[in-house]
Amino acid sequence: MANMSEKFIITEDMKPIHVGLLGAGTVGSGTFAVLKRNQEEITRRAGRSIVVRMIADREEEKARQIAGDDEVIVTRDANEVVMNPDIDIVVELIGGYTAARDLILKAIENGKHVITANKALLASHGTEIFAAAQKKGVMVAFEAAVAGGIPIIKALREGLTANRIEWIAGIINGTSNFILSEMRDKGLTFETVLKQAQKLGYAEADPTFDIEGIDAAHKLTIMASIAFGIPMQFDKVYTEGITKLTREDIRYAEELGYRIKLLGITKRTSGGIELRVHPTLIPARRLIANVEGVMNAIVVRGDAVGSTLYYGPGAGAEPTGSSVVADLVDVTRMHTADPKHRVPHLAFQPGRLSDTPILTMDEVETSYYLRLRVMDKPGALADITRVLADLGISIEAMMQKEPSEGEDQVDIIMLTHLAVERNVNDAIARIKRLPITTGKVTRIRLEHLGSK
Amino acid sequence: MANMSEKFIITEDMKPIHVGLLGAGTVGSGTFAVLKRNQEEITRRAGRSIVVRMIADREEEKARQIAGDDEVIVTRDANEVVMNPDIDIVVELIGGYTAARDLILKAIENGKHVITANKALLASHGTEIFAAAQKKGVMVAFEAAVAGGIPIIKALREGLTANRIEWIAGIINGTSNFILSEMRDKGLTFETVLKQAQKLGYAEADPTFDIEGIDAAHKLTIMASIAFGIPMQFDKVYTEGITKLTREDIRYAEELGYRIKLLGITKRTSGGIELRVHPTLIPARRLIANVEGVMNAIVVRGDAVGSTLYYGPGAGAEPTGSSVVADLVDVTRMHTADPKHRVPHLAFQPGRLSDTPILTMDEVETSYYLRLRVMDKPGALADITRVLADLGISIEAMMQKEPSEGEDQVDIIMLTHLAVERNVNDAIARIKRLPITTGKVTRIRLEHLGSK
Repeated sequence: MANMSEKFIITEDMKPIHVGLLGAGTVGSGTFAVLKRNQEEITRRAGRSIVVRMIADREEEKARQIAGDDEVIVTRDANEVVMNPDIDIVVELIGGYTAARDLILKAIENGKHVITANKALLASHGTEIFAAAQKKGVMVAFEAAVAGGIPIIKALREGLTANRIEWIAGIINGTSNFILSEMRDKGLTFETVLKQAQKLGYAEADPTFDIEGIDAAHKLTIMASIAFGIPMQFDKVYTEGITKLTREDIRYAEELGYRIKLLGITKRTSGGIELRVHPTLIPARRLIANVEGVMNAIVVRGDAVGSTLYYGPGAGAEPTGSSVVADLVDVTRMHTADPKHRVPHLAFQPGRLSDTPILTMDEVETSYYLRLRVMDKPGALADITRVLADLGISIEAMMQKEPSEGEDQVDIIMLTHLAVERNVNDAIARIKRLPITTGKVTRIRLEHLGSK
Repeated sequence: MANMSEKFIITEDMKPIHVGLLGAGTVGSGTFAVLKRNQEEITRRAGRSIVVRMIADREEEKARQIAGDDEVIVTRDANEVVMNPDIDIVVELIGGYTAARDLILKAIENGKHVITANKALLASHGTEIFAAAQKKGVMVAFEAAVAGGIPIIKALREGLTANRIEWIAGIINGTSNFILSEMRDKGLTFETVLKQAQKLGYAEADPTFDIEGIDAAHKLTIMASIAFGIPMQFDKVYTEGITKLTREDIRYAEELGYRIKLLGITKRTSGGIELRVHPTLIPARRLIANVEGVMNAIVVRGDAVGSTLYYGPGAGAEPTGSSVVADLVDVTRMHTADPKHRVPHLAFQPGRLSDTPILTMDEVETSYYLRLRVMDKPGALADITRVLADLGISIEAMMQKEPSEGEDQVDIIMLTHLAVERNVNDAIARIKRLPITTGKVTRIRLEHLGSK
């Protein structure tokens, strides 16, 4: 076979696609580097070359650094990019709400396709943005918004279309997974590992978004919308972070055969859809329980396929750039298609979203890990199990620790069968009032992630 | 929000897509069942309903059983389906070469899109089939041909387009993975577990294709083509099965921190592309080492994204049906697009495949597990390490087993650093001739699957 590139003839509709980057940060530099390094191969895949023509950043110097010696227009003013008739696709990597939203809407208004990694914006304003894009017949792609380099949006939107999705459970925040991995592996406290993570650049100076589960909630909102065909509803996600997890709970979970992970979980039930982010015990033998460090992984349960899992780096310049460029190739391959016959933004055809209600956390049914500190006296256990039985909560496993030398309190750990959260909260309140308890009850949710 | 389905208006270009199924076996029944059960949701995703209108099988009764009470034309003659002007998409689930190839080419000639799960056919005749489809402007989709329900074709062809793929390593044959899992878990022999697998329906009466790595080689051929933009070259895949693996090797590997899996591996090197299927030691801590039973998993290493992993069921009626239906939705969403602007069949634009050479196994460089049975005499080890050193093979780890009571032979296990296979084979031949060896040397390849 001859070298085929010699036979390749450039025709009019193969002229380069022109890209404008908004934001010259980590992902911007990764996107630029990947596009440049793999230019030849990407062109062979896309059918046209994809070229960054403009980079905008308030710090013009940063944009210039990325551009290097390449012929790229550098500007402080992102508006110049979204208004420029020479630009076909705008890549929004600024983050945040107001400016990013305005620029995206302006780009759409000017007939440009948009690629964004802005999960916070999509989770909150996605409905408005997709409606605008629909109206103008342009594409908005966002693979980089969820789980960095893992093509999970494509898997949900296109790979699993045969399925009625039953649930999704994902490790979708690398920072918190790194912290939990280190706490377990080295027996360190949350505070100690957080400081390490900040030193290593895995956690920001203000780590709130990551460790309080907010970042995961943004990503979960987007996945749930695509999986179930529902609008983005970030405000309805229950969010609980990892700041209160102790080494003891991680160790006890381990002894019982479980790992604790911060999971984003969305599940379809007969009453509605669950949307929740919280620390979760999962059986240690599950593949996802063995995802360590800053890596991400998502399990998707579909009625036809069963469980599939997607694993990879959830952040970083080039992994996230990989997803941005995949979107660029997608848009390049498909931008001439009749807009009605493209893949729908949110997997389901516009106007065919459903109004399935989102459950409150009170209504959620799951299993629980309960740790109670009680006085080491006869009858303590009977009082506690009585409270649980009265509320219809049954116990799957129990572990009682011997009191340490000279101590008169012991830890009792219980794993429950499925129970409704309202009842569990009720039980905890009652248990706290029992004279034999010390008033402290730790509650962590537990998911088997099995076939049911 | 109102229930949107009421607002949904049927227009002319939303009339149902008509599907003809060739083959009423396991995957055919799964495809039919999934399409029917999830009809409403699939329509919301695809924009049109997708309806099976014809089923062909030589055993007409089987086709009739699948169709049930539905209005489906059942026939013994698959030609009737591919000739019928009412059929938009032909799904080929017959398997085998001659008949399947003729029917697919006839369907293409009649302007029909084709979906196939026939890995053997694509690996051998893919080039001819895709050229015909290209010429007629129809799509040929084949997600179900590799790794059952896992959307790995889509990930490679669309999700990772930014990347220069460095290597792929996959557990892509569930039968052999089940056998290896059971051998390790229960300490059983290959023959014992094979019989169990046959009883459970995990292995066929003639299990050759699965246990000799041929099925995996078909799938590997297809993945390599998409990953590297090369033609299908099944005849160049090195294929070695699992029939000679012993419990001892599995146990020794375990003691050294490794698991043995049958992997399909394709790797880009400076000299060419490796294409090989063989039992492989991989570090037990890798996620893919923990994939058990009939499940499949594929690790893809890209230069931008790093390693991503895709896991799920590799076979079965509904998991494979899930992939067939995903292809049906894809074709439905995109079939009106200008053929030049669809996703290319093999990820790269037609005519832009490369003629990168495929390496012979002799040229492959990897690490090795060597087990030698030697006389328990002083100097034995020195003789062996001298042979290895002479051929530039260096040792990473070694383990010598104490001889059993009354035995005068011992097992020596060595793990090598990277070495060229030609040299390793040479070394083995020389070692076998040493007077202190018993003439038996077991060689299993080893891959770290790390970042290099």
